[in-house]
Amino acid sequence: MPSQAAVTEFAALETTLDAHRLRVDAALKEFHRPGRAAEASAAVEYALFAPAKRLRPVLALLTAEILQGDTLALLPAACAIEMVHTASLILDDLPSMDDAAQRRGRPATHVAHGEANAILAAFALQNRGFEVLAAGWPGAPSPTVRLMMARELAAAIGLDGMIAGQSVDLSMTGRGVDFETLEFIHSRKTGALFIASATVGALAAGAAERERAAIAAYAKNLGLAFQVVDDLIDVTHTAGEAGKDVNQDTRKTTFVSFAGVAGARQLALELAQTSQQALQIFGPRAQPLRDLARYVVTRGR
Amino acid sequence: MPSQAAVTEFAALETTLDAHRLRVDAALKEFHRPGRAAEASAAVEYALFAPAKRLRPVLALLTAEILQGDTLALLPAACAIEMVHTASLILDDLPSMDDAAQRRGRPATHVAHGEANAILAAFALQNRGFEVLAAGWPGAPSPTVRLMMARELAAAIGLDGMIAGQSVDLSMTGRGVDFETLEFIHSRKTGALFIASATVGALAAGAAERERAAIAAYAKNLGLAFQVVDDLIDVTHTAGEAGKDVNQDTRKTTFVSFAGVAGARQLALELAQTSQQALQIFGPRAQPLRDLARYVVTRGR
Repeated sequence: MPSQAAVTEFAALETTLDAHRLRVDAALKEFHRPGRAAEASAAVEYALFAPAKRLRPVLALLTAEILQGDTLALLPAACAIEMVHTASLILDDLPSMDDAAQRRGRPATHVAHGEANAILAAFALQNRGFEVLAAGWPGAPSPTVRLMMARELAAAIGLDGMIAGQSVDLSMTGRGVDFETLEFIHSRKTGALFIASATVGALAAGAAERERAAIAAYAKNLGLAFQVVDDLIDVTHTAGEAGKDVNQDTRKTTFVSFAGVAGARQLALELAQTSQQALQIFGPRAQPLRDLARYVVTRGR
Repeated sequence: MPSQAAVTEFAALETTLDAHRLRVDAALKEFHRPGRAAEASAAVEYALFAPAKRLRPVLALLTAEILQGDTLALLPAACAIEMVHTASLILDDLPSMDDAAQRRGRPATHVAHGEANAILAAFALQNRGFEVLAAGWPGAPSPTVRLMMARELAAAIGLDGMIAGQSVDLSMTGRGVDFETLEFIHSRKTGALFIASATVGALAAGAAERERAAIAAYAKNLGLAFQVVDDLIDVTHTAGEAGKDVNQDTRKTTFVSFAGVAGARQLALELAQTSQQALQIFGPRAQPLRDLARYVVTRGR
């Protein structure tokens, strides 16, 4: 829990985050199509409609907002990102992967709906993300921009993205990992989709390539800071507080096992600072993104 | 094995199918990006480069060809279809799904590369299919057409497509199934991607909506005929001949367990006939697709 001072300091940001989150929650319901696969649909709904921060789609909306983009026109694309993210959480928790029993404060999808339905739900969610982008919506960005968004999303998922992170993470479980490998794993597992989220927001706002590069650098470091804090929460919080299994990472090298609690806290602060520095070209209008970077780090306090 | 008469009758078609298959094989190699996830990449390559008929991308190419489309410009989209198909095969074979040990004449991907890598490979393949469509290529169809292709593909995969078929199939295992449910399962598990394949080919050739509807009706029945023949092969062939586990379907209702061997043969012939009738509006130029429908049925002899 953030301290009282932090709560006050970030009151305005929290109001903004909450408003965006509620819009994402509502839009996700709208963009879900149950289909005739009753059991797989139920698993999709279970995973997708669990209480969640929606940080990635909110990051997309926040980015579009500071660049004067139309956040309403971006909402379905932001939902596509959350669908892909939810798919990755389902997969991460599978018995053959991290074998986690809890997620988002409830039993993991494969625990509640069985492994086959969980896998099908993850596939359906990833697929639906691309379908939403492909189908378009009233006021949607042009076909060319939607293809660019789909490409960003695919790059974040693929064999150089989240899948690479997960694959290397699994192959290193139970083995010592150097800092470079640890950074590789998490820049893919977490950083890649943060980058895609912010980039999708920037694309919706018609940002120039130089601006997109700055936004990507911000998001990469934000994602890493977020992951370091996640590792801190894993050792300092109960499962109830974290909403998922904790002390899961004993067979894995984490930022905490690597640098210690104090070292990890320091690292998170530095990453948050680096992420803010990337925003220099935007001047004061990027303040909400700077606040977000500082806010993310307070989670681990 | 087709009879000698069949071999002679379909010699021209087989030459065409072989030529298209070789082009697909070569293009798949070109469009695969190994990435830094070594183990997941190895599982992707294992599954994707196994000897295969490539029937779905070949169907896309054949469809474009009879509609005077540019098959070379379609090749990457055809590869995207095969990537998605390969992903679905990997998933179908998983222990939590059909638990099959053999596929495409070799150990199933999860047997050879472990379950986690198999699941990641399936995700990577589905993702790469959309990425190829999103990224485009020299001579590619317009962004609008590529989005239409992605939408067709997503519809074929989703909660009303292959995932629906697999979900209902799993939920009915060990239980009696009526013909309508059996047809539902296979029109999704097999039919949906056949429809998407032919439609992608038709889109590449700029076919009108009326033509696309005819092509879709053809492909739907072709897919079902193909599945009925698959069920026949499951009971009449050895694993070596079939290239995958046979007699796997004892706990499932199949077209053969439902209608008997003679009845299933009759059904396959009727479906092949129905598929050909859908091609009437195209006149003689659709002959290769008619030949394909008759050819597919000879596999079960």
